[in-house]
Amino acid sequence: METRRWVVEVNQALLGKNTELAAQNRLRFHAQRLLVLNVLSAPGSGKTALLERTLSDLRGRIRMGVQVGDLQTDNDARRLSERGAPVVQIVTGGCCHLDASMIAQANEKFDFDAIDLLIIENVGNLVCPASYDLGEDLRVVLLSVTEGEDKPLKYPVMFRKADLVLITKLDLADAAGADMGALRENVRRTAPMAAVLELSARSGVGLEAWYDFLQNAVRANQNAAQESH
Amino acid sequence: METRRWVVEVNQALLGKNTELAAQNRLRFHAQRLLVLNVLSAPGSGKTALLERTLSDLRGRIRMGVQVGDLQTDNDARRLSERGAPVVQIVTGGCCHLDASMIAQANEKFDFDAIDLLIIENVGNLVCPASYDLGEDLRVVLLSVTEGEDKPLKYPVMFRKADLVLITKLDLADAAGADMGALRENVRRTAPMAAVLELSARSGVGLEAWYDFLQNAVRANQNAAQESH
Repeated sequence: METRRWVVEVNQALLGKNTELAAQNRLRFHAQRLLVLNVLSAPGSGKTALLERTLSDLRGRIRMGVQVGDLQTDNDARRLSERGAPVVQIVTGGCCHLDASMIAQANEKFDFDAIDLLIIENVGNLVCPASYDLGEDLRVVLLSVTEGEDKPLKYPVMFRKADLVLITKLDLADAAGADMGALRENVRRTAPMAAVLELSARSGVGLEAWYDFLQNAVRANQNAAQESH
Repeated sequence: METRRWVVEVNQALLGKNTELAAQNRLRFHAQRLLVLNVLSAPGSGKTALLERTLSDLRGRIRMGVQVGDLQTDNDARRLSERGAPVVQIVTGGCCHLDASMIAQANEKFDFDAIDLLIIENVGNLVCPASYDLGEDLRVVLLSVTEGEDKPLKYPVMFRKADLVLITKLDLADAAGADMGALRENVRRTAPMAAVLELSARSGVGLEAWYDFLQNAVRANQNAAQESH
């Protein structure tokens, strides 16, 4: 009981501190007219593969940078930095999520004047990262068709907080025997306010809608920033 | 800093308490000559599908029971209980892992005289559950071929603690373009002491080796228990 009370107090203190730092990040991002995405999913849903292709395909159309979080290894940063965008790896050293203080540190390594869109690739985990505001404008949650149509129901917090749900690996839907009707219905039910796109980074299907979403969001963000100055 | 010191203290207290409760669970399981598996993976690696098929196929050969953990829903318990084995759902209510106290509570709902193998299906999460001993004899970690060959390197704690690694969804390896050589090498490097099996619950390939593993482990556990009495 003593322990449980402790945990509640510490969690509240931690999340309160995180919310404070996230607000500072957000102010800094807004001052720089930067659109910031927090990209979340289970391990292996295809976050890095989608970002690799996005960085290549939108090169010259959007000025992008990436912060990528992993427990260990800088594999993802190495993969992504081959695509010509500035990339910073955040190694959490076992921590199961990114938090706002990690982002604040990574921000120091960026030239924000050189980018209009910052994509933060979170640690692969459908649970814990949902509770940590990083200062982002939009949350993008990936769900691959191979994970099973029940996942939104089983990880409702993550999906409820999504602004955009990307259903990925569409090219594997038939091979995996995915029940796409049930999957769409479960996404719709758990994330009723989110936009939903279906795509495959491998086959390329659906990517144009994702790119349109990004370009429109960056443009809207810059217009809003201009008006408020 | 103050907050960080708190966190370390609370984590130590929590994990210490968990280890104590796990030891109590383990004593109880041993007294009942029960073999206990802690089954872990990312969301959507196929834990429930594999257990469904295992319960059906080994019915009459091993007396099994299941405890299944999810953040929300009792979908998995409903799926599994159709297979004729006793199943208890543990709803963690947002907690990202099972802990030993949840198992102790679920144990109260079981008739341990009626089973020889208890399978605990953990919350889908490749990070946090790795730190919580439940009192199990063996840790079984699933990795589906659709998740990408780099996952053992990126989630090393989970793999390092595995006694058995099951590479699942083998029927999708070609469609997913999985690099099986790299995947095997990364499993071998991260979990050098673990047994490794490759299978597909859908096609059935590799299941006999998994069933042999279970039958041998149950038999060895019962012999060991007999000798110690």
